[in-house]
Amino acid sequence: MNAWATWLAEQRAAREAAGLQRTLRPRQADEDIIDLASNDYLGLSTHPDVCRATADAALTWGAGAGASRLVTGTTTLHADLERELAEFTGHEAALVCSTGYQANLSAVTVLADRHSLIVSDEHVHASLIDAARLSKAAVTVVPHNDVGAVREALADAGDRRAVVLTESVFSVLGDTSPLPELVDACTAANALLVVDEAHGLGVAGEDGRGAVHARGLAGHPHVVVTATLSKSLGALGGAVLGSAALVDQLVNRARPFIFDTGLAPAPTAGALAALRLLRDRQVGPARIHRRGAELAERLDVPRSAGAVLSVPMPSPRAALTAQAEALAAGVRVGCFRPPSVPDGVSRLRITTHIGLDDERWDHALAVLTAAVDRCRT
Amino acid sequence: MNAWATWLAEQRAAREAAGLQRTLRPRQADEDIIDLASNDYLGLSTHPDVCRATADAALTWGAGAGASRLVTGTTTLHADLERELAEFTGHEAALVCSTGYQANLSAVTVLADRHSLIVSDEHVHASLIDAARLSKAAVTVVPHNDVGAVREALADAGDRRAVVLTESVFSVLGDTSPLPELVDACTAANALLVVDEAHGLGVAGEDGRGAVHARGLAGHPHVVVTATLSKSLGALGGAVLGSAALVDQLVNRARPFIFDTGLAPAPTAGALAALRLLRDRQVGPARIHRRGAELAERLDVPRSAGAVLSVPMPSPRAALTAQAEALAAGVRVGCFRPPSVPDGVSRLRITTHIGLDDERWDHALAVLTAAVDRCRT
Ligand SMILES: Cc1ncc(COP(=O)(O)O)c(C=O)c1O
Ligand SMILES: Cc1ncc(COP(=O)(O)O)c(C=O)c1O
Repeated sequence: MNAWATWLAEQRAAREAAGLQRTLRPRQADEDIIDLASNDYLGLSTHPDVCRATADAALTWGAGAGASRLVTGTTTLHADLERELAEFTGHEAALVCSTGYQANLSAVTVLADRHSLIVSDEHVHASLIDAARLSKAAVTVVPHNDVGAVREALADAGDRRAVVLTESVFSVLGDTSPLPELVDACTAANALLVVDEAHGLGVAGEDGRGAVHARGLAGHPHVVVTATLSKSLGALGGAVLGSAALVDQLVNRARPFIFDTGLAPAPTAGALAALRLLRDRQVGPARIHRRGAELAERLDVPRSAGAVLSVPMPSPRAALTAQAEALAAGVRVGCFRPPSVPDGVSRLRITTHIGLDDERWDHALAVLTAAVDRCRT
Repeated sequence: MNAWATWLAEQRAAREAAGLQRTLRPRQADEDIIDLASNDYLGLSTHPDVCRATADAALTWGAGAGASRLVTGTTTLHADLERELAEFTGHEAALVCSTGYQANLSAVTVLADRHSLIVSDEHVHASLIDAARLSKAAVTVVPHNDVGAVREALADAGDRRAVVLTESVFSVLGDTSPLPELVDACTAANALLVVDEAHGLGVAGEDGRGAVHARGLAGHPHVVVTATLSKSLGALGGAVLGSAALVDQLVNRARPFIFDTGLAPAPTAGALAALRLLRDRQVGPARIHRRGAELAERLDVPRSAGAVLSVPMPSPRAALTAQAEALAAGVRVGCFRPPSVPDGVSRLRITTHIGLDDERWDHALAVLTAAVDRCRT
């Protein structure tokens, strides 16, 4: 063994000793399990219209975009999705990226550089944290949803450009951010607020137009929104939403956009079909909220404004055990342990899905209540 | 206008003054243009088997993976692709990421941290540069393909873990790296060589197994390979190839893998179908090299070991003009200007495609020779 192999073996041994070793478990296409773990909240990934549009795009356009969006990787599908996504969320323009991760990397690295200040909520997603690192800006991490701390941090910006990072619905805890107060703080300090709507789009606000739209903040000159096409829209990819001038800057300067193959036609068309179902009110988030409230009550945890319910567990092993018990009874939920949790607390992460009929939903409720109760004590 | 809008307007004005403003131009599905700009070298993106597999996967599995590969985002399709990709390229294991960009971010940030040394060829792709930045390692940039400089830089590593970054076929210039010498240098210094085969896979080596395989270096204990599924495989996504222990470390530690939605079933299946066509010798790179040699001779530039021919032009505007002339005659080629070129020299980037019949290929040769000759003088 060379030094690298030794190091890899040591790393694995340490993970195993800590009960933190993870492996990939492939699922079958026909498995009969109730999915309350994925982010496909509206069941749109398997909606017939979405599947059909995805498949048709592959047959019409081919399997890939073939090159960067700036070379030959932009199709009329991308242009349609960008126009309709901007319209739906209330922004002037949108730019589709190949992942939500790269949408965040693109937005933040274009807005901030080594001369800037980034003020980041301590709970933001890994992609925003990596984006802040990549930008080389000075970063001040503030306590979760603490607007006073944001104001204080911005007061130190001096003449640096300052960017504040938050999520509308936080990915692991499922709670929301105080958007109007954050926008006020940014406006007062001439800073820009970047709101990641990965878990807001399709779930929050009227018809799922997102929390920024719901608060009347879409198009605000101090707000930029990022989103994914891979969660409630059921496909793959990400987007940055804002002014046409911002999109122009991204097209010209965002390295993770410029030097990356464009999103393939299939997921582009899938996301577009999903978006049209939302816009035309063929599907909507109302039932997510009803079911989420029911689940929260049964598990005795606070309600979520989104589709993500966070259930703290006493230990990583308790969380794993509850997850395994639920799975044995046919219900899959997420289990988040360090280092994937913002606060070090292991938890179940249960997402409300509306694709299930009432009978399966009731079964899931019963299974989860039993498993969580047993493992919480 | 607030300060941000003013800044965006100034940025655009500066780009326009420098002749560097870029915009996205959507293409139609049915346009009749000869594509020598994309990286779909083997024409696999539109191969009937690949399109069919892509479409079928969307109908069978849905439009998206639904969650991180660690939650519910791993399907048996991913497992099949990983096994067959590892086998094809001669590695023990593979990990599929949602983009080639994120494959590079994942590999490098897992192998190097703030206590490491990264030695990077000055021409490596933006994704490797961003990966090095994100890792927080100390970075020494060495002159292009200068093995002596790599050895010298590694001599300074002391007891830091050291990682060397290169590409097998460089993305813009199309030249190759001295892989055996680099592996020797890494082995002597106990360093690891990361080889990005984005433009090698499908093009270099027997059946397109890549340059690392061709040199007998696949599976070497000091070599890790990254690749994309978005170029010769015609789909979307990326992969890291190496030991099973490395893949295990990535699954547990690579943030751009863990905190990212899995590659959607459609492009996963598309890449798998393309890989099988290569493996079963239904398609192969031989004709790329014949056509590439022909084109190089006509344009009086050095041959490429891959499918990328780099044609230096006297100025950004000359490059743009030649590109526009070729397009007017029905041939699309790439045009790279600062900041997308490693050496500041604007150039046409022409990729050899084997999907064209001989008549269209001959037409393309005539158009390009005329356009380049006119704009080079
Ligand atoms: C808040 C948040 N932002 C960004 C991302 C990245 O999006 P994607 O998975 O589409 O790359 C995710 C999830 O993966 C997320 O939860
Ligand atoms: C050398 C190289 N590495 C990585 C990438 C990124 O791959 P992808 O476009 O699949 O994200 C590219 C091209 O985009 C590339 O040319």
